[in-house]
Amino acid sequence: MTTRLLVIGGDAAGMTAASTAKRLAMDALEVVVLERGSYTSYSACGIPYWIAGDVDARDDLVARTPAAHRENGIDVRMRTEAASIDLAARTVEARDEHGHVETLTYDNLVVATGAEPLRPPLPGIEAEGIHGVQTLEDGEQVLAELERSPEHVVVVGSGYVGLEMAEACVRRGAAVTVLERSPSPMPLLDPDLGERVAAAMRGLGIEVVAGAEVTGFRTGPDGRVTGVETTDATYDAELVVLGLGVGARTDLAVAAGLPTGAKGGLLVDDRQQVEGHEAVWAAGDCVVTLDRLTGQPIHLPLGTHANKQGLVAGRAIAAAVMGADAGLAFPGVLRTAITKVCDLEIAVTGLREDDARAAGYDPVVASIDSTTTAGYFPGAVDMTVRVVADRVTRRLLGAQVVGGQGAGWRIDTLAMALWTEMTVDDLAMTDLAYAPPFSSVWDPVQVAARAAMRQLGTRV
Amino acid sequence: MTTRLLVIGGDAAGMTAASTAKRLAMDALEVVVLERGSYTSYSACGIPYWIAGDVDARDDLVARTPAAHRENGIDVRMRTEAASIDLAARTVEARDEHGHVETLTYDNLVVATGAEPLRPPLPGIEAEGIHGVQTLEDGEQVLAELERSPEHVVVVGSGYVGLEMAEACVRRGAAVTVLERSPSPMPLLDPDLGERVAAAMRGLGIEVVAGAEVTGFRTGPDGRVTGVETTDATYDAELVVLGLGVGARTDLAVAAGLPTGAKGGLLVDDRQQVEGHEAVWAAGDCVVTLDRLTGQPIHLPLGTHANKQGLVAGRAIAAAVMGADAGLAFPGVLRTAITKVCDLEIAVTGLREDDARAAGYDPVVASIDSTTTAGYFPGAVDMTVRVVADRVTRRLLGAQVVGGQGAGWRIDTLAMALWTEMTVDDLAMTDLAYAPPFSSVWDPVQVAARAAMRQLGTRV
Repeated sequence: MTTRLLVIGGDAAGMTAASTAKRLAMDALEVVVLERGSYTSYSACGIPYWIAGDVDARDDLVARTPAAHRENGIDVRMRTEAASIDLAARTVEARDEHGHVETLTYDNLVVATGAEPLRPPLPGIEAEGIHGVQTLEDGEQVLAELERSPEHVVVVGSGYVGLEMAEACVRRGAAVTVLERSPSPMPLLDPDLGERVAAAMRGLGIEVVAGAEVTGFRTGPDGRVTGVETTDATYDAELVVLGLGVGARTDLAVAAGLPTGAKGGLLVDDRQQVEGHEAVWAAGDCVVTLDRLTGQPIHLPLGTHANKQGLVAGRAIAAAVMGADAGLAFPGVLRTAITKVCDLEIAVTGLREDDARAAGYDPVVASIDSTTTAGYFPGAVDMTVRVVADRVTRRLLGAQVVGGQGAGWRIDTLAMALWTEMTVDDLAMTDLAYAPPFSSVWDPVQVAARAAMRQLGTRV
Repeated sequence: MTTRLLVIGGDAAGMTAASTAKRLAMDALEVVVLERGSYTSYSACGIPYWIAGDVDARDDLVARTPAAHRENGIDVRMRTEAASIDLAARTVEARDEHGHVETLTYDNLVVATGAEPLRPPLPGIEAEGIHGVQTLEDGEQVLAELERSPEHVVVVGSGYVGLEMAEACVRRGAAVTVLERSPSPMPLLDPDLGERVAAAMRGLGIEVVAGAEVTGFRTGPDGRVTGVETTDATYDAELVVLGLGVGARTDLAVAAGLPTGAKGGLLVDDRQQVEGHEAVWAAGDCVVTLDRLTGQPIHLPLGTHANKQGLVAGRAIAAAVMGADAGLAFPGVLRTAITKVCDLEIAVTGLREDDARAAGYDPVVASIDSTTTAGYFPGAVDMTVRVVADRVTRRLLGAQVVGGQGAGWRIDTLAMALWTEMTVDDLAMTDLAYAPPFSSVWDPVQVAARAAMRQLGTRV
């Protein structure tokens, strides 16, 4: 007997769930995907690099087209929006681009509606020329704006997307100002490390204004944005990029009665099954997941989690259909992330000192300066590793890495230590790779672990 | 009361032990170091890069000079050899460069005599122009040979040092041939990956001959080497570099009655205390250590271990002197290592399939091809990750990584998984950093872990 899996949303989480379930359950499962946009399975994280010109074409960012999915037996319906979900009847109303509405039944439903850039309700926010960057369509719009050669671009917010978009716009020839509300840019980092990022940005010619509270947007007679107003000043801008983060896109799910938690994300278990709803699953930027370090739910919309959650959901659904064990669980997150500004690599994992204290730990902090390769090796560049550890258990709790080319990848070593609840003592003595072109004889990660040991009273 | 620590050998392990003990015990400890050469605390691993010209000067490789150690209160005696050890009397006979002999007493002794390049007893092996590369003096001699502009250089052996020296000599303008006894070069890798390395070497103009059994060395009337003979051919060579590995330098310790194990390395516990000898410690290339994956002793002479073992020994000695707890143990090794040939990065950790089988595991192997960054990102280059996992426990047992710039560092993520006895299932779902300039959305390490899961019957 064939059952139907209906998936709302055709990007990373939704298409991974659809593909995985179809591949495992084969003819036992009919899979229908509704995607309101024009693209499936694309790399949203690649958009700033496409806009910068590093990536030639939009289609380079598309991992799998609707046609390719259809060849795999998935009924992908593009430019088709889910208008409502009826959980009791197990139906979804789908409306296509021509306004035709069809009621689709489902046996299992995946909600993978993603997230949307936050747009604070400030005067002028709806003016033309103000863009978030989340979908390929957003990318196309920003590129179209840049083709108009705006003299001034203002990026509001200096998180990952803000940084990447600021660099992209500079490389497209615009004068770029980044406005950040926090006292230092890149608020995911400690302030002194954020200042290092600001310096790199200024090196690219980007104006960085910290402590800038945006109060509204100035518009011209044609309704287009002409400037960004803060409590202190007004900044000219013919293009504004919003880099204020994203919020879970869950209006549809909430209207249907599905439960939400942190920042409006859907509540799911570790098989991505929506709490209290046996036939409903959710994955990607629209869900809440487990922060392994705090034990608390967190909304952390990143492509790497969306893909894994989609895989978990797809397997669980196939297992449910075929009466098998779901097997794989989504084990939660550490908040690992990485980016770069020019040649400066920036990476974080786990908790900062203040996060750690808020989570009930008794944190100590150690910070070391080292080089990406052996100090004497040509091309050795500076890098800083900062680690946070718990005074009681001596566990590593988090890390920040900022430095030149070759610095950033160290975050994965640190993430692995966090994942396995390793103490800084153990981390200091692990068998990491060493050769002069790659590392000093004590890898900077281990130098930092030793510094933390000293903070904890061990003389090493 | 002051006690005396006597250290034999002034490079990584010996000087780290000496410095650590002195720093912790201070005036309670008199520290005397005997070093038969002219340098202390240098990077032996950097020698090929100095010879290649990447590193300008010999002294760039010296992390701390004898004078700097003396400023820290350590009595460093250069060009002074330990001639004999009397364990019962707790004395060492030290002979300086002028032949003066002094009998030094000790309360604690560290043997850090290192290793020496293997020189198989073949006809002609003692000819001039045949060099191993272990000490800065060796490096000076090879550089002096290269200043004579030899037309042909033969490197015997294609392990790390063999590869690095072959590239260094090519860059110095010589025609270089590498002779490897095994059927494929770089025998630390599986043969097909070794072939990839051979191709990179050939791309540099290096002649690579596998399956070449060296039978002797041809010499000229002046006693200098003129060629290398194998069972199949004779290769012209005015300079021969031996890259056949190193053996523990333990004649002195063995003569004194200290116990040795695998490949003649000294047997020590996890505090680097020599088995059965309370006052004697050993660290670095002259000791045997624990292979965490096989549970067996192994001789693994690498600088990264020498430094850690020196730290452990120094702490343990200081603790013994001061009546404190030694605290830190040396936890053993995974056989992690990394190098590069031109732009090809080569890294290994843990067991290969045959090692795993020999150690009693039931291995499965999975190999994947991926790219160093997101596939669409400019500069993405190919990389291969091969993992070995245990069929029963699903634990990761080992990994090999070969690929372009940005491939090699992945070995540290894999080493961390090995260290913590992680299953491939867990590894596939860890929270590693993702951004297009650094990784595909599933890091190649996780793609490999998923491939191993499939080998183990899990459809992911």
